[in-house]
Amino acid sequence: MVYSPLSDAVMQAYNTVFETPDSGLLATYIPKLATVDPNQLGVALTAVDGSQMTAGDSDKLFSIQSISKVLLLCFAYRQLDAKTWERVGVEPSGTAFNSLLQLESDAGIPRNPFINAGALVVCDLVLSLYPHADAQLLAFIQWLADDDTITYSPEIATSEKQVGHRNKALCYFLKSLGNLHNDPEVVLDFYFNLCSIEMSCNTLSRTFLFLANGGQHPTDNKQILTTSQAKRINAVMQTCGFYDESGEFAFRVGLPGKSGVGGGIVAVYPKRYAVAVWSPRLNEKGNSYRGMRFLETLTSLTGQSVF
Amino acid sequence: MVYSPLSDAVMQAYNTVFETPDSGLLATYIPKLATVDPNQLGVALTAVDGSQMTAGDSDKLFSIQSISKVLLLCFAYRQLDAKTWERVGVEPSGTAFNSLLQLESDAGIPRNPFINAGALVVCDLVLSLYPHADAQLLAFIQWLADDDTITYSPEIATSEKQVGHRNKALCYFLKSLGNLHNDPEVVLDFYFNLCSIEMSCNTLSRTFLFLANGGQHPTDNKQILTTSQAKRINAVMQTCGFYDESGEFAFRVGLPGKSGVGGGIVAVYPKRYAVAVWSPRLNEKGNSYRGMRFLETLTSLTGQSVF
Amino acid sequence: MVYSPLSDAVMQAYNTVFETPDSGLLATYIPKLATVDPNQLGVALTAVDGSQMTAGDSDKLFSIQSISKVLLLCFAYRQLDAKTWERVGVEPSGTAFNSLLQLESDAGIPRNPFINAGALVVCDLVLSLYPHADAQLLAFIQWLADDDTITYSPEIATSEKQVGHRNKALCYFLKSLGNLHNDPEVVLDFYFNLCSIEMSCNTLSRTFLFLANGGQHPTDNKQILTTSQAKRINAVMQTCGFYDESGEFAFRVGLPGKSGVGGGIVAVYPKRYAVAVWSPRLNEKGNSYRGMRFLETLTSLTGQSVF
Amino acid sequence: MVYSPLSDAVMQAYNTVFETPDSGLLATYIPKLATVDPNQLGVALTAVDGSQMTAGDSDKLFSIQSISKVLLLCFAYRQLDAKTWERVGVEPSGTAFNSLLQLESDAGIPRNPFINAGALVVCDLVLSLYPHADAQLLAFIQWLADDDTITYSPEIATSEKQVGHRNKALCYFLKSLGNLHNDPEVVLDFYFNLCSIEMSCNTLSRTFLFLANGGQHPTDNKQILTTSQAKRINAVMQTCGFYDESGEFAFRVGLPGKSGVGGGIVAVYPKRYAVAVWSPRLNEKGNSYRGMRFLETLTSLTGQSVF
Repeated sequence: MVYSPLSDAVMQAYNTVFETPDSGLLATYIPKLATVDPNQLGVALTAVDGSQMTAGDSDKLFSIQSISKVLLLCFAYRQLDAKTWERVGVEPSGTAFNSLLQLESDAGIPRNPFINAGALVVCDLVLSLYPHADAQLLAFIQWLADDDTITYSPEIATSEKQVGHRNKALCYFLKSLGNLHNDPEVVLDFYFNLCSIEMSCNTLSRTFLFLANGGQHPTDNKQILTTSQAKRINAVMQTCGFYDESGEFAFRVGLPGKSGVGGGIVAVYPKRYAVAVWSPRLNEKGNSYRGMRFLETLTSLTGQSVF
Repeated sequence: MVYSPLSDAVMQAYNTVFETPDSGLLATYIPKLATVDPNQLGVALTAVDGSQMTAGDSDKLFSIQSISKVLLLCFAYRQLDAKTWERVGVEPSGTAFNSLLQLESDAGIPRNPFINAGALVVCDLVLSLYPHADAQLLAFIQWLADDDTITYSPEIATSEKQVGHRNKALCYFLKSLGNLHNDPEVVLDFYFNLCSIEMSCNTLSRTFLFLANGGQHPTDNKQILTTSQAKRINAVMQTCGFYDESGEFAFRVGLPGKSGVGGGIVAVYPKRYAVAVWSPRLNEKGNSYRGMRFLETLTSLTGQSVF
Repeated sequence: MVYSPLSDAVMQAYNTVFETPDSGLLATYIPKLATVDPNQLGVALTAVDGSQMTAGDSDKLFSIQSISKVLLLCFAYRQLDAKTWERVGVEPSGTAFNSLLQLESDAGIPRNPFINAGALVVCDLVLSLYPHADAQLLAFIQWLADDDTITYSPEIATSEKQVGHRNKALCYFLKSLGNLHNDPEVVLDFYFNLCSIEMSCNTLSRTFLFLANGGQHPTDNKQILTTSQAKRINAVMQTCGFYDESGEFAFRVGLPGKSGVGGGIVAVYPKRYAVAVWSPRLNEKGNSYRGMRFLETLTSLTGQSVF
Repeated sequence: MVYSPLSDAVMQAYNTVFETPDSGLLATYIPKLATVDPNQLGVALTAVDGSQMTAGDSDKLFSIQSISKVLLLCFAYRQLDAKTWERVGVEPSGTAFNSLLQLESDAGIPRNPFINAGALVVCDLVLSLYPHADAQLLAFIQWLADDDTITYSPEIATSEKQVGHRNKALCYFLKSLGNLHNDPEVVLDFYFNLCSIEMSCNTLSRTFLFLANGGQHPTDNKQILTTSQAKRINAVMQTCGFYDESGEFAFRVGLPGKSGVGGGIVAVYPKRYAVAVWSPRLNEKGNSYRGMRFLETLTSLTGQSVF
């Protein structure tokens, strides 16, 4: 732990959130997620200079769920560049039900890669690019994190698949609209694997650090994405990263980021750091209640936001 | 004109856009706007240190149209603070038709203050706060710009009112849903006045400079908004400032900003500068074709964006 | 009163409904309607042979509200014939919110003449046809009913106008979409007058008798509509006459008809009779609770329905 | 062939339609349907007195497609009576895209049993009632038709299944909303079989005759449905039988009926006859172009409609 105004702010934000009552509900639609101890709270911040600040359950593994959609998108984007956007948009989705209605009116082009329909299309893109997509995506993520223990959780993937009727519906709907090239069942298996990845806050903040670092890997210095591509991924996270609460997150926190129903949130402060927080109880929009509060408190204390 | 890498970039971006063919169509639904010479192009950047860089038709007056919704919002927000958001949201609106559908499902709360329904509600808020709202809002804007010649254009306001059936529909719809407290006709007159304000790029960049300056007036040093409020206005511009192209603008330009159908766009680079561009032809989403290209080129050349 | 199996069935259905508990709520959005004694129940059946059967409050005047939209439509249709359908459709509207959403996607053509948007368009058609539309429509209705005391209620019309923000919104929305040729304020005044007509069940059943009589006036034998036109008006009532309960009414009652929020319902048994019922309390779909039950009971007892 | 005014009208309507140019397009989304000779035209009318009038290709087999949804519904309804309507509604669906949007807002209850979502739910009801649903439904239909050669077409069923991604999406969407109790794949197989049934016009008119006969089998006199149930099936056909053209069909033809994308239409004139027509080219709403014209001409010539 480095002592600095920033590390003080991390500790102070952690303590503030830890001491105030939690609220919200555990995600229960995936049976396996419902068994998590809801009282956990972990935070980790990794700066581009390599320094790291952590507090609480920062080393506990949790299901990063939709956060992995960003990594999937980067994996496709570095190969396809602008071609990515021929099959998926970059606009916020508006209200939730739009996902289905909108697909029909826009001829099967999902509004952005972070709604489920969009992530399914990106899965399809990746499956067309990589012969061993499951293994190759995992290797990519392990490289980003400098951690080859990261893996899919078959237990979570199976649990999600058993109740994943709505995603199955979305996937066949995309197929019927012509925006899915692979077998829907193969796409779904890949999608459920993707969502099952487990990380700690510590690992998560390191994994996303390249997006604060102009697209460059923080330790081996290779370009994961070009600087322009990294900036654009941050832009899409800013406008679309929090479902129907993206505006609220920009408004209260002011950093690009992405949340998952496992209670994790990761945010990026360009040129400076990536910060991850995890606490399982979700607000009514499906984002971690304490995670949102931690990041809001942190950016208020530091005055460090993109706006 | 200051010579600097930034001023070089402004000139280079201006020249690039000036030399490539224009595209798009003039807004014609307001008869008065259809008479503008479509070939004009002006840019102006004002930095927090007071330096200014301009090119082309930077002193020509044009109708700032929806850009004034940001100034209206600031005028309400500085009085009402968080209470503002009890009557209007901060989320992107998704597809265009949502404006009506969504009002019904959300009991009359427009998704954000920059869609027409939202601006009408903010007009209503201001009318309830200020006995002489028209004059007081104008005085506020003149103060921001240090320019007491700024005024409404009765000609534009009348022209818009004559064809403003849809805004009238929206206004009565809000009234029927209980989210309009003043007489709809009074709200509409105020709204059409608001949209008729004329400025040059030069003035526009100065007017918005306080949002790059932590909410502080750049010359008299008074707080127009608190730092936190200014940051939040920037956040709402980032996620909602470009109708159904907000994601695209974040993606390509990466600065908070606001456009108007008169062909103007203003963008804010926090802590550094505000930049305005004007060119009347609009792309299919209703934003200035050359304005978008200029800002994209500028942020590419400088590498200066919030992401 | 004629004694016959049919008159027995009318009395039996009346008594059954009278003796079972009422349910539902009075329409309160129009202040004047909220002052009606909710316990009233009247029925009247007029057969094409001129015989009439009545029970309860069959001579009390009530506000027929939307029922008058059928008379308005007939008034336009007899002049314009097929041209009527260039400006309004004949399809059920589906869910309630469609009225607005659908207008946008169908370029301002309301799905049918009985939703408010559709009736406003028919008002507009009539205003373009008749220089003294108010007086001429009233004279037409008086002729149908053989009763020159039928009149508009200025009290009801004023009461509706004061709270008619949503209809005003619809009207300006139609104007903005190009499907309203007259001044919206003139159309609205005509529309509010239309909805304010008062009749008794007795009069109402006589007024609609021509639709059971092949379009012919039951006493002076003139053709009000051609036989084909009368059949088509019945068809539109069958599929669109009961808002979002048209299918349910066809299913349970099996006669073409039209309801109003004043608690009135009129139904037509082609070639035989017209029957009117009135009871002010409305079910959740906005149709008279006891009115629906009376007609269901009547068609069950007689076995007389179009299906 | 009986000679009578009715048989004259059938022949005259047939000749009129046969002699005027055909229009519309063959359904091509099901590969197998695209191979049909599009110039065929057959008609058959069976009266409750047993007399039958036919013309053209009245004995050629064709794929009755969605027409079989009525038979499926009757098969469920005779067992479940009012319980049927706990899982599916009786209201017209409004615009096409509603099917998906509406399911979400109405918690998975399809608006009526003739849109695909509704038929899938009725398939699910039947699968829960009958251990050998495929065979038992077929036996039921054979009984109605007095024809044990009626069968599913495995070729058509397989062809539909291969391209049935949208129905698969709907089915999993219903599952996710809790309104499907059986395995979606089993429901889909049953559904695709259902749609693959082949009949001639001759057989089709006999099969539907019980709905003109108060629910009674025309030859063995057993009650297939109660009189009240039969009337209600006719009511649902009237309001929901022709997709987004149900109002138009009521308006132009004025009989309850059901169409299929194979180009067949069957209509019922209560107490008198059932009439079937088949011609493969479809109008833009998906109903047989010549079929619609034949029925419109027939009811115009005879003056026999329910209105």
